[in-house]
Amino acid sequence: MIKTAVLGATGYTGIELIRLLKGHPMAEPVFLSSESHSGKKISEVHPQFRGQVDLVLQSSEVERIPLSTDLVFCALPHGESMAKVVALRGNDFRVIDLSADFRLKKKELYRDWYALDHRGEALLTEAVYGLPELNRHEISEAKLVANPGCYPTAVILALAPLLHHKIIKTGPIIIDAKSGVSGAGRAPRQPFHFPDCTENFKAYKVAEHQHTPEIEQELGRIGGENVLITFVPHLVPMVRGILCTIYVELNRPSGEDELRSLYHDYYCQSAFVRIYEENILPETRFVRGTNFFDLALKIDRRTGRLLIIGAIDNLVKGASGQAVQNMNLMFGLAEKCGLEQLSV
Amino acid sequence: MIKTAVLGATGYTGIELIRLLKGHPMAEPVFLSSESHSGKKISEVHPQFRGQVDLVLQSSEVERIPLSTDLVFCALPHGESMAKVVALRGNDFRVIDLSADFRLKKKELYRDWYALDHRGEALLTEAVYGLPELNRHEISEAKLVANPGCYPTAVILALAPLLHHKIIKTGPIIIDAKSGVSGAGRAPRQPFHFPDCTENFKAYKVAEHQHTPEIEQELGRIGGENVLITFVPHLVPMVRGILCTIYVELNRPSGEDELRSLYHDYYCQSAFVRIYEENILPETRFVRGTNFFDLALKIDRRTGRLLIIGAIDNLVKGASGQAVQNMNLMFGLAEKCGLEQLSV
Amino acid sequence: MIKTAVLGATGYTGIELIRLLKGHPMAEPVFLSSESHSGKKISEVHPQFRGQVDLVLQSSEVERIPLSTDLVFCALPHGESMAKVVALRGNDFRVIDLSADFRLKKKELYRDWYALDHRGEALLTEAVYGLPELNRHEISEAKLVANPGCYPTAVILALAPLLHHKIIKTGPIIIDAKSGVSGAGRAPRQPFHFPDCTENFKAYKVAEHQHTPEIEQELGRIGGENVLITFVPHLVPMVRGILCTIYVELNRPSGEDELRSLYHDYYCQSAFVRIYEENILPETRFVRGTNFFDLALKIDRRTGRLLIIGAIDNLVKGASGQAVQNMNLMFGLAEKCGLEQLSV
Amino acid sequence: MIKTAVLGATGYTGIELIRLLKGHPMAEPVFLSSESHSGKKISEVHPQFRGQVDLVLQSSEVERIPLSTDLVFCALPHGESMAKVVALRGNDFRVIDLSADFRLKKKELYRDWYALDHRGEALLTEAVYGLPELNRHEISEAKLVANPGCYPTAVILALAPLLHHKIIKTGPIIIDAKSGVSGAGRAPRQPFHFPDCTENFKAYKVAEHQHTPEIEQELGRIGGENVLITFVPHLVPMVRGILCTIYVELNRPSGEDELRSLYHDYYCQSAFVRIYEENILPETRFVRGTNFFDLALKIDRRTGRLLIIGAIDNLVKGASGQAVQNMNLMFGLAEKCGLEQLSV
Repeated sequence: MIKTAVLGATGYTGIELIRLLKGHPMAEPVFLSSESHSGKKISEVHPQFRGQVDLVLQSSEVERIPLSTDLVFCALPHGESMAKVVALRGNDFRVIDLSADFRLKKKELYRDWYALDHRGEALLTEAVYGLPELNRHEISEAKLVANPGCYPTAVILALAPLLHHKIIKTGPIIIDAKSGVSGAGRAPRQPFHFPDCTENFKAYKVAEHQHTPEIEQELGRIGGENVLITFVPHLVPMVRGILCTIYVELNRPSGEDELRSLYHDYYCQSAFVRIYEENILPETRFVRGTNFFDLALKIDRRTGRLLIIGAIDNLVKGASGQAVQNMNLMFGLAEKCGLEQLSV
Repeated sequence: MIKTAVLGATGYTGIELIRLLKGHPMAEPVFLSSESHSGKKISEVHPQFRGQVDLVLQSSEVERIPLSTDLVFCALPHGESMAKVVALRGNDFRVIDLSADFRLKKKELYRDWYALDHRGEALLTEAVYGLPELNRHEISEAKLVANPGCYPTAVILALAPLLHHKIIKTGPIIIDAKSGVSGAGRAPRQPFHFPDCTENFKAYKVAEHQHTPEIEQELGRIGGENVLITFVPHLVPMVRGILCTIYVELNRPSGEDELRSLYHDYYCQSAFVRIYEENILPETRFVRGTNFFDLALKIDRRTGRLLIIGAIDNLVKGASGQAVQNMNLMFGLAEKCGLEQLSV
Repeated sequence: MIKTAVLGATGYTGIELIRLLKGHPMAEPVFLSSESHSGKKISEVHPQFRGQVDLVLQSSEVERIPLSTDLVFCALPHGESMAKVVALRGNDFRVIDLSADFRLKKKELYRDWYALDHRGEALLTEAVYGLPELNRHEISEAKLVANPGCYPTAVILALAPLLHHKIIKTGPIIIDAKSGVSGAGRAPRQPFHFPDCTENFKAYKVAEHQHTPEIEQELGRIGGENVLITFVPHLVPMVRGILCTIYVELNRPSGEDELRSLYHDYYCQSAFVRIYEENILPETRFVRGTNFFDLALKIDRRTGRLLIIGAIDNLVKGASGQAVQNMNLMFGLAEKCGLEQLSV
Repeated sequence: MIKTAVLGATGYTGIELIRLLKGHPMAEPVFLSSESHSGKKISEVHPQFRGQVDLVLQSSEVERIPLSTDLVFCALPHGESMAKVVALRGNDFRVIDLSADFRLKKKELYRDWYALDHRGEALLTEAVYGLPELNRHEISEAKLVANPGCYPTAVILALAPLLHHKIIKTGPIIIDAKSGVSGAGRAPRQPFHFPDCTENFKAYKVAEHQHTPEIEQELGRIGGENVLITFVPHLVPMVRGILCTIYVELNRPSGEDELRSLYHDYYCQSAFVRIYEENILPETRFVRGTNFFDLALKIDRRTGRLLIIGAIDNLVKGASGQAVQNMNLMFGLAEKCGLEQLSV
C-alpha cells in the first residue's frame, strides 16, 4: 500500500482525495493535516467519514509527517503551498501539489497573475505539469507534480489534438467556461452564500482569470508557438462540474468525422477521455464524481467555425482524481486504478 | 406619503422592506442605514436597485434620522436592536422592530432563550405583538410594534382558531417546521455555503429553537391556558418559504368541513389568510414573494389526529410584508395597501 | 381599463402575463383560455392566484372572446399561434403574439428553422417586431405585434448600438447564451425532470437554435448589412434568467468609457436598459422578476476584443413584461406603467 | 462472479444498481432490460455509462434471460412486477424485487393501498422482507426477497430497537418524512418539472401514503403488537435523500445515553447503521451515494418526548444499495462487499 499524506485535508479537494484514497486498492491516507481543526477527527468535521476514516487531523509541520509516507498531496491554497512544498522536497518527500504554485514556469507570470512573489523558484524546473494524457512519461519519473487547474484541464484536453496537428488558428481562441460552485473552495463568502448563489448565473473575472496564463503556457508548448486566448469563466448554481464551450477557426475546411478520428488517435491510450459521436453532447452530470473528460465536436456549417464542448468534474478530473491518476503513474500502477467509479 | 427609515437596510429583511416600500403607493424609504456599507449607495451593494433606489447608506445613529421620518423599521439583529429601539422611542419615533427583542413579555424568557440580558425592559409593556390577524386594534394604536418571528407567524396563524375555540388538547402539540435558507440571514457561514447547503436536508436546533417561547406565549394568550409545544425546525435547500406540519389531538371528533368553516369565520376579515379546500395542499411556491398565509386541514382517519399544514414566505408574511401590513394599520391605510403582488 | 384576453393562460408566459396584468393600474385580464383546463378556474390550476384571479378558463375559439376586449395576448406555442392570429386579425382584434410565428419576415426562413409552412403569410408585413427600445413608434401604431424571443431580446439589445454605429466587424459575432429552464416551457419532458436537470449544465441545439435567424434579421436591419452569428445556447439549473456573453471584434480600438457613453446615448429614452459601470457585472438575480435589461462592457486588453454581457429575466423582458411594455405603447400609456416591480 | 440481470434498467433504481454492480468485486450485470429502449445500449440512454457499461437493452421476457444468470433484480414499477416475478420464480430464478409487490403479507392491504388485485399471492409467503439489519438469516436463505421501500427502511431502522424493547407507546407514533425527488421515479410529470419543483417545498399524500401499511406491518412484527402511525411525507427540492423526524412517547423516562447504548447493542452487527453522539445531527448529504443509515436521538427536555432523526440515500440504502446488500447475504459474501463507497 502506498502511504499518503493529505495536507489541507478538510477543504473540498482534500476530502475528495480522502474519498478516492479510501476506495483505492493500493493506497491509503495515513496523515491528514488541517490547521483550523487540528486535534479533531476528520469525521468530526466531515461526518460522512464517520466509521470509515477517523484519522485525527494534525497541523502540517513537515516534521510531523511520518517518514514512511510515500507521497504527500499538498491541497493547501496557492501562496501557502509554495513554502510547504519547498520544505517537503527538502525532506525528500515526493509531492503532488494541487495548488497553482508550481504550474507556471515563469515566476514573472506568477507574480503578474497571482500578485505574489514566488518563493520556491528553484523547484519550478523540477515540477512536472501533471496532465497525464499529455505528460505520462515525465509524470512517472517526477518527484514533484504540479497538478493542473480545473479549467486548464478541460481546456487543454479539448484543444491539444488541434494544436498538435496545427489545424487551427492560434489567434482567436475564445473559451467560454462555466463552473460549479465547489471551484471557489470551502470558505464561506458572500457570492457563494446559498441565497445569493442559487437561482443565479453570472460571469466573473472576465478576461482576467488567473488560469489564463496556465492555459496559454501549455497550449503554446503543445502547438510550438504562442497561443493567445480570451477566457471568460461563469458561475453555475450547482456544486460540481465544468463545461467549456470553445470557439476556434480551422486553417482549412474539415469534416467532423475527420476531426473526431484525429481526437481518437491522439487519445488512444487515454481511458478517461470520451469522445462523443455526432448529435450527442456532454453534460456535467455524465462526469459527476468521475475522472472522465467528455468531449463533443461540432462544426457550425453556416460560419465554418469549429465548436468544442468539453466537460469534467472539477473536483475529480479537475483536481483530486487527476492527482490520484498522477500518483498511479508515479508508482507504476495502472492509470485507472481506484478511479473507475461511475457517475452518481 | 409616509416617510420611513430602514435600519439594517442591506440584510435580507432590509432589502425586502425596500422592495415593498418602493412599490407602496403611500410610503417611501427616505433613510437607510448600514454600518458595514455606510457611504455607499444601496444600489452599489444590491445592484437590483440600480436606477430605482439609489439612497446613500448611513450609519444608524438616531440623530442622523430625519425628524420628519414618520416610522422607523428596525431590521437589526436581535441584541443590537434593543438599545436602538430604546433610543428611537426616547426620540419619540414610532417603531416597528423586526428583531426578536420586544416579542417576549418576560425578560427571563428572553435571557433563557437568547442568552442575553434585556436592556429595554421598560418598553416590553408598550410593545404590541404585530400579528395583524390577531391584534389589529392594538397595532393600529401602537407606538412600538414587535414584528413576529417567521416560524411563529406560520404556527400561530395555523393554530389560533383551534385554541380560541378550545377544541384541541394543549398538551401534545407537535410542530415540524421547514424553512428556506434566507431565514438564516445574509451573513455567509459554513452551513449556508452553497455546496454544503444545496442538495441537502437537515434538522437543526431540535427542540431548542429560540422561537419556541414566542409561540407558546402567544398560543397561551389565545387559548387562555399554558400551551406546550415540541418544535423541530429543518433547513430546506431553497431561498424562501416556510411550511409547517402540525400534529394535534382534537378534544372531540370533528369533520374537516366543520373545522374549515371555523377557520373561515375566524379569519373572515383577514385577506391574507387563504384556507384550502379538501384535496389541495399549500406549497411554498404559491406564497413566494407574497404576504399570504396558506393553510390546509386534514384529519388522519386512521388515528383521528388533526394535521394542519401552513405556508408563508418567511421574508414577506414572516418579516417585511408583515411589517408593512403593520405600518398600514398604524397609519390608517387599508391593510392590503402595497401588498397585493402575486407570486413570482 | 384596457380589457385584455390571454390565450394560452396556463403556460409560464401566460401566468406571467396574468401576474403583470393583475398588478397593472390601467389593464386587466377579462378572458383566459386553456384547452387542457377549460372549465376550471385559473386558480385551480395555479393556486398562487387563489382569491386574486379566479377567472374560469375557456377554450380559445375567437368567437368566445368578448367583443369589448381591447387587446389579445396570444401565448400559444409557435405553429398553433399562426391560425389563431389570422382569425383574431380577421375579427379586427389587436394582437400581441408571444410566439415565434410572426417574427421572421421571410416565410422561407420560418420553414427552414421551424420545419413548418407558414399559413399566415399575409400578416407578415403587418406584424411589427415588438422590441420597444428599437421600434417605439411602429409599435405604438401596430395592430399586430410580434413579441421578440427571449434570446433575441438580450442579444439585439446588447449589440444594437455597436451595429448602428458600425464599429464592429459583422463577420465573427459569437454569442454564448445561457438560459434558465422556464425557457423550455411548462410541459414536463425528460431533460427538464428535476433529477435530470438540477446540478447539471449543458449546451443544446449548438449552432442550430431557431432564434438564430431572428437575431440575424434584426441585427442586419440595424446595421444595414448582413450579419452572421455563431449562437450556442446552454441550459442553467435555475428557473429564470438569461445571460449572454458576446464576443466581437472592434473595427478600431476604442475605450470602455467611450463605448459605454455610446450605449447611454443610444438608450437615453429606454428606462429598462441599465448600463453598468466598470468592474460591475450583471447577474441574472439582479433582473429576476423585472423588465430590466442589464449590460456590461469589457475590453479584453490582451486581445483587444470587446466582450458584452447582457442579462434579462426570460419570462419578463424576454416575454410577458415586454408584451406589457408593447401594450403600454399601443395604448398610449407610459412605457413603464405596471412594470416597475423590483427583483424578488 | 455472480451473474445478474436487471429488469427495468433505465429507471433510477435500475441505473443505481448498474453503478453498484459495476463497482462490485464479485458481481456483474449480464442482462439489462428496458421495454422503451430495447435495442439501444444502456450507454446511449445514460451516457455516464459510455465505455464502462455498453450492454444492449433487451425486452424483459423471461426466456431472454440467460439461464446462467444467478440472480435477477426486478426494478419494474409495482403492479408490473407481480407477474414478472411469478414467471421468474416459475423458471427458478432467484429474485430480488425492488417494487412494492411482495412486501405486504396480506393481499387485502395491497388492494386497499395500491388499488390493485394481487396476482402473485402464492409467493407472498415465500418472499422475505429484505431489511438485512433485521432479517439477516432469512435473507441468506431466500429465493425471493422483497426489497423494502425507501421510507420504510428509514423508519423501521429508526424505531426497531425501541419497539423490540417495548419502551415506547405504540399509539401515537408520528412520522414526518422528507424525501428528495428521485423517489418519484424517472418519468417526467408536472410536479417534478424543474421550474415547478425547485425552490419549493410541500407535503403530499398526507396520511395516505402507500408505505404506511408496510411500516406498520414490520413495526408490528418487531414489537409483537399492532402499531399505528401517522405518516406525512414531504418533497424536498433535491435529488437524493430521505430524512425522517419521528416523535414518540417513552413508557418511562430514559436518558439519551441509555437509549443510544441500546441502539448500539441492537445494531452491533450492522456496519451500515451509524448512531450519532449528542449534539450532532444527520444530514442527507452525509449519506449521499452510500448505503448508510444515520441516526440521532434527542429527548425534548420540556415535554419528555423522544425525537428520532434518521437519514438514508433513498436510491442506495432505500433501494439499490440495500438490494446489493441482500444479494451479498444470499450469496454468502461479506455484507459490505461492494458497498463501501463514501459520500460524494
